[in-house]
Amino acid sequence: MIHFKLIKKDGAARLGSLTTPRGTIETPIFMPVGTQATVKAMTPEELKTIGARIILANTYHLYIRPGHELVRRMGGLHRFMNWDRPILTDSGGFQVFSLNELRKITEEGVKFRSHLDGSYHFISPEDAIAIQEALGSDIAMCFDECTPYPATHDYARRSMEMTTRWARRCKDAKTREDQALFGIVQGGMYRDLRERSAAELREIGFDGYAMGGLSVGEEKEVMHEVLEYAAPMLPEDRPRYVMGIGAPEDLIEAVWHGFDMFDCVMPTRNARNGMLFTSFGRVNIKGAAYAEDAGPLDPECDCYVCRTYSRAYLRHLYRSGEILASRLNTYHNLYYYLSLMAKARAAIAEGRFAAFRQEFYAKRELQGQSS
Amino acid sequence: MIHFKLIKKDGAARLGSLTTPRGTIETPIFMPVGTQATVKAMTPEELKTIGARIILANTYHLYIRPGHELVRRMGGLHRFMNWDRPILTDSGGFQVFSLNELRKITEEGVKFRSHLDGSYHFISPEDAIAIQEALGSDIAMCFDECTPYPATHDYARRSMEMTTRWARRCKDAKTREDQALFGIVQGGMYRDLRERSAAELREIGFDGYAMGGLSVGEEKEVMHEVLEYAAPMLPEDRPRYVMGIGAPEDLIEAVWHGFDMFDCVMPTRNARNGMLFTSFGRVNIKGAAYAEDAGPLDPECDCYVCRTYSRAYLRHLYRSGEILASRLNTYHNLYYYLSLMAKARAAIAEGRFAAFRQEFYAKRELQGQSS
Repeated sequence: MIHFKLIKKDGAARLGSLTTPRGTIETPIFMPVGTQATVKAMTPEELKTIGARIILANTYHLYIRPGHELVRRMGGLHRFMNWDRPILTDSGGFQVFSLNELRKITEEGVKFRSHLDGSYHFISPEDAIAIQEALGSDIAMCFDECTPYPATHDYARRSMEMTTRWARRCKDAKTREDQALFGIVQGGMYRDLRERSAAELREIGFDGYAMGGLSVGEEKEVMHEVLEYAAPMLPEDRPRYVMGIGAPEDLIEAVWHGFDMFDCVMPTRNARNGMLFTSFGRVNIKGAAYAEDAGPLDPECDCYVCRTYSRAYLRHLYRSGEILASRLNTYHNLYYYLSLMAKARAAIAEGRFAAFRQEFYAKRELQGQSS
Repeated sequence: MIHFKLIKKDGAARLGSLTTPRGTIETPIFMPVGTQATVKAMTPEELKTIGARIILANTYHLYIRPGHELVRRMGGLHRFMNWDRPILTDSGGFQVFSLNELRKITEEGVKFRSHLDGSYHFISPEDAIAIQEALGSDIAMCFDECTPYPATHDYARRSMEMTTRWARRCKDAKTREDQALFGIVQGGMYRDLRERSAAELREIGFDGYAMGGLSVGEEKEVMHEVLEYAAPMLPEDRPRYVMGIGAPEDLIEAVWHGFDMFDCVMPTRNARNGMLFTSFGRVNIKGAAYAEDAGPLDPECDCYVCRTYSRAYLRHLYRSGEILASRLNTYHNLYYYLSLMAKARAAIAEGRFAAFRQEFYAKRELQGQSS
């Protein structure tokens, strides 16, 4: 199972350590997303080189292809994809709800059609746990309904209540001793509902607690406000995970308010679209300004890409549609995210996270690239 | 410049060493193709890990994008792409002739339209040398006409004669002392024309000699026959390069007849299409038979991919359209080609190339996969 230890607090920001059967992870931590049993464009060895300690895999995608039973027969997800560090699996809920017209939600579970071949499927909370147990992740997530935005208070309440009932069913369905289970707080952007959701989940009792239903279209200010008031609703002695966020500034704010774990496709997906994160803001590498720029992508970055290649070369690769463009861009963006969290941990350890946060914003504003 | 030393002959097969300003290469050697200033899906470090000693870059593609003058201003192709070992550039002739309706050939040179934006361009033999000098490759190729197949004796003769005149112009245009220049033997599938072409090129004098106009639609037996009778037409004390071939068996035959250098997109392109080379023949990794195959792609291969992943995982990646599929498949296929040549060199050194060649075929026939 897992054990969380709160090492130090700096304001609301937390330095922690999460011990799993596959090693101890320092938090706050970013988890690269490995949707289809691979973090797109990266090898496991490269992920280790840039400091990834835990990755996320998507239950829905693996259920659809190659199938969780196949993964089980191949020795589990770790062995299948050659990753011996911890894996967190989402419950599949978010992906299933994203299918829109292709799914129907009832108290029993969700009926949906595969995005690949249109075949019909049904997943209950119990199924979601069984699938994650077959995959063999170290941390599983409860099956939840991701409340859409905007939603009326009444809709958000009923949705949250069902998520709580499903959370109880998930905990009851759980059989693996070596897999932790996190509950997911819902309630839309309503403080009273988040409060109730958190209280009821704490009552059931989970190894960690996640914030769901964020980054679903609400404004950044709204998201940050929810994070600020919701963090204290969660137990101090358990890891706190914000699902699916976000931009670098979202991570900084979430850490600032006391969250520990994050995942997002932004660094990997943006990389493949030529959008790169640097210490002074974002760079769209296809810009003509970089055509003959012999300098590194980010002069303050010491990753392989920034130490080795020019912006001119990165631009050429991107414009030429080369696979190496996706590789180098992904490598750099993930390095940026992982080292941002490493710097945040160091700042908390030294009691200077407020100054670190201020400097983070100042550097970007200096370049007029704060967006 | 370069210096070729013939170390040993085993029948017609040759073990040689080619000394360049960027290191000494043992021959026979396969050169991975890096069309657009990158060997697709690979980093330069990975190419070194699998034993690549020299790569090929395509003059036409780099002329079109990003432009040879840009590459020159960025410090030359080696620096631009971070490859400090030798590079051979083709002359652009083959790609230009492949444009078909988009090009017009005259004695002066070739007028053509870019495959990217339709813009008009003209390249003379002198231009082809100037472009390759701007790129800064270690070995440049003469601008030639790749004689189509089939061609009448009359057409093949006139085409070959122009290639010879162009070869003279290329040698006259050359200014860089640190760049070698190879002549290209043409003449279609006509022995008398190949003889004349080789004799006239030897008369002009080049640092190495290549066979052009092969693998253009002729049957394998025809290609192998040309290689057999043409090798003795080339000087013993210069490297002999067969352009654009081929399948593993084509390389074995070419080495058998006395050729030293090869390039082909087959290992890299086939990799991206899921077609993998193994010691017992070809494997189409998308086959359903591999869905739950926990074994390595090639049990006799000791590359990273075969040591690390199952066929089931490789199949899953390929079917999922993952970038890692292209990466791992390319890595393995290039490793296969490079180690095939390493084994050929060892066999020649030990005077057992005939047995090695026999074993190569026997192993494939055993599995019924000799094609």
